[in-house]
Amino acid sequence: MGYNLTTVPKEAIRMSFTDRIYNFSSGPSMLPLPVLKQAAAEMTNYRGTGTSVMEMSHRSKAYIDIFDETKADLKRLMKIPDTHEILFMQGGATLQFSAVPMNLIGKTKKADYAVTGNFSQLAMEEARKYGEINVACSSDDKNHTYIPSQDGLALSKDASYFYYCANNTIYGTEWKYAPETGGVPLVSDMSSNILSMPVDVSKFGIIYAGVQKNMAPAGMSVVIIDKTLAGKELPFTPKLMSYQLMIDSDSMHNTPPCYTIYMLGLVLKWLEKQGGVEGMSKIKAEKAKLLYDAIDESKLFTGCAEKASRSDMNITFRSTSEELDAKFAKEAAAAGLENLKGHRIAGGLRASVYNAMPMEGVRKLIEFMQSFEINSRKE
Amino acid sequence: MGYNLTTVPKEAIRMSFTDRIYNFSSGPSMLPLPVLKQAAAEMTNYRGTGTSVMEMSHRSKAYIDIFDETKADLKRLMKIPDTHEILFMQGGATLQFSAVPMNLIGKTKKADYAVTGNFSQLAMEEARKYGEINVACSSDDKNHTYIPSQDGLALSKDASYFYYCANNTIYGTEWKYAPETGGVPLVSDMSSNILSMPVDVSKFGIIYAGVQKNMAPAGMSVVIIDKTLAGKELPFTPKLMSYQLMIDSDSMHNTPPCYTIYMLGLVLKWLEKQGGVEGMSKIKAEKAKLLYDAIDESKLFTGCAEKASRSDMNITFRSTSEELDAKFAKEAAAAGLENLKGHRIAGGLRASVYNAMPMEGVRKLIEFMQSFEINSRKE
Repeated sequence: MGYNLTTVPKEAIRMSFTDRIYNFSSGPSMLPLPVLKQAAAEMTNYRGTGTSVMEMSHRSKAYIDIFDETKADLKRLMKIPDTHEILFMQGGATLQFSAVPMNLIGKTKKADYAVTGNFSQLAMEEARKYGEINVACSSDDKNHTYIPSQDGLALSKDASYFYYCANNTIYGTEWKYAPETGGVPLVSDMSSNILSMPVDVSKFGIIYAGVQKNMAPAGMSVVIIDKTLAGKELPFTPKLMSYQLMIDSDSMHNTPPCYTIYMLGLVLKWLEKQGGVEGMSKIKAEKAKLLYDAIDESKLFTGCAEKASRSDMNITFRSTSEELDAKFAKEAAAAGLENLKGHRIAGGLRASVYNAMPMEGVRKLIEFMQSFEINSRKE
Repeated sequence: MGYNLTTVPKEAIRMSFTDRIYNFSSGPSMLPLPVLKQAAAEMTNYRGTGTSVMEMSHRSKAYIDIFDETKADLKRLMKIPDTHEILFMQGGATLQFSAVPMNLIGKTKKADYAVTGNFSQLAMEEARKYGEINVACSSDDKNHTYIPSQDGLALSKDASYFYYCANNTIYGTEWKYAPETGGVPLVSDMSSNILSMPVDVSKFGIIYAGVQKNMAPAGMSVVIIDKTLAGKELPFTPKLMSYQLMIDSDSMHNTPPCYTIYMLGLVLKWLEKQGGVEGMSKIKAEKAKLLYDAIDESKLFTGCAEKASRSDMNITFRSTSEELDAKFAKEAAAAGLENLKGHRIAGGLRASVYNAMPMEGVRKLIEFMQSFEINSRKE
């Protein structure tokens, strides 16, 4: 039973899809419109089964087909090797902040954390409950506007793992390299840039991602784990947070977030039509370049992150004052370009341009920035 | 911004809703058809916002309105007193098996568990990781076909809490009373009978429910907690499992399962139209009576649970042989009455008739049972 975005019933097309906004939210964020249309069309009767995917037993054949195909598609698209398993877990990235140390730190009771923003800071603080944490680097000295270089990492030889957040949603920075750790397993939070480019999964002990940015609606995290790392959890680890149990039960020890997995499946079919992660990598680079060029050419706006560390997913910038930033965000929203206000920690402005943000949305934003700049000069 | 099931756009009505099955699955299970229709109609553009609920920032006004209204509706429908808080958590009932002891057992290091089925057994085993557990009663002596009486409960005076599962999905039994514990806080897993009847919430320390039976699609649990019980979690409790943190952050420490909460909101609006929990209580009693009467009048089928302990949600029964049970489930499925096979642990047959199962589905099942019985006599 294959997904096919071209088989959306005509009835669904008749529904009104006018007046969609461009949503630059940092997450939850835009989903591809063909995916939403298909979900709507299949809502009450999934492909002749007489039932919604929401209503299916997770043990039913119809649902297992969806589940298996979604996993297989993710494995193929990300070229995940057989050494690694895909887990669908609940609790978002935040529960992984706890699950990672609970499952992995037992080996040496120590771990290295790179602190390059708010979420890696929170992950590090949570890990301190479970072992000794070495801060391998921190970009706090420059308000997290850059990613330290490999030379700037103070690595421990006896760390159970090295942890970093691959893309910092709030500050708009992105790691351009995977750290070399001399054999210490790499753990990476890729919540905000997974599926935006090819990644050599074999280099990683764990890649995980909250799905609500580039994958699916909020309410799940995808964990891709080197199977040899599982099975050593601390004794008080909640059963459902044991990676080994999740591997052994194929993420079905209890009822998984079935509909979210189905939505991920639809997104992956859409991603494949964009040329997979390779195709998406080109598209996202083009979108980011257009925006950063517009910022760099502007006399009103400046980028927040250092150029070498700029994120292709979260473009942070600011005008000349907080007041003008607020005016920009408000007027942009009125023009259908929503959620451009920066995170309260960082201030300024932020355009999150995840996979589902159409090129047209980026162009409209640039046009709006240019007209806003011209108008602000007149005033 | 009020929900109104009568404002579903005509376009949605035009979609094909024919050939829906009656799904007797124990969970995930049926959702009300008007709810599914409305979700489909609003999928790509929620009430003029230009965005899907799936795409909304959980901090946006549009989403906060949905969130607040859903909480308020649940509070009103269940008459939840101000002493208690409603939490939306991830991980289903299984993560609550861990969260309950992690948050509550610290007081005396002891807890009482009533073991009346598979899920209370699993909850009890998980709790043993965190403290000393007294099995206050077990129905294992009669294969969990009954609920022990108040006199049959061996209560500890120094228990931090008393735990029971109010409805046993697998065995088809239901507690007809809330245990008297002499001041020890009551914790109840109501995953499979919440919202099916009025409950005096003030009697409970915690009521929780995985939502995938009577509330919403899988991927969330609702926790209703006496606020005075929070704030005493064991030191290694994962941050996201702290009831106190969830109370303090109004379930938004991180991104909640936004769309599942929206679906719960739609279900609650539908429930209100059925007369709330009071109305639903009459409807479910009628559905269950019809089915149990048919079983008791049959010469082929017998009920599995003792009459005084019968569940109104999960009707367990069997024919005269495993082979005939299998034939029944198979032929029923072919007639559009699906998922009537009993749980593999219990065997036999099971009809789960949660709130969203229409009366018509129950009638069709009874008709099918009667014709199956007549045909089986002929053979």
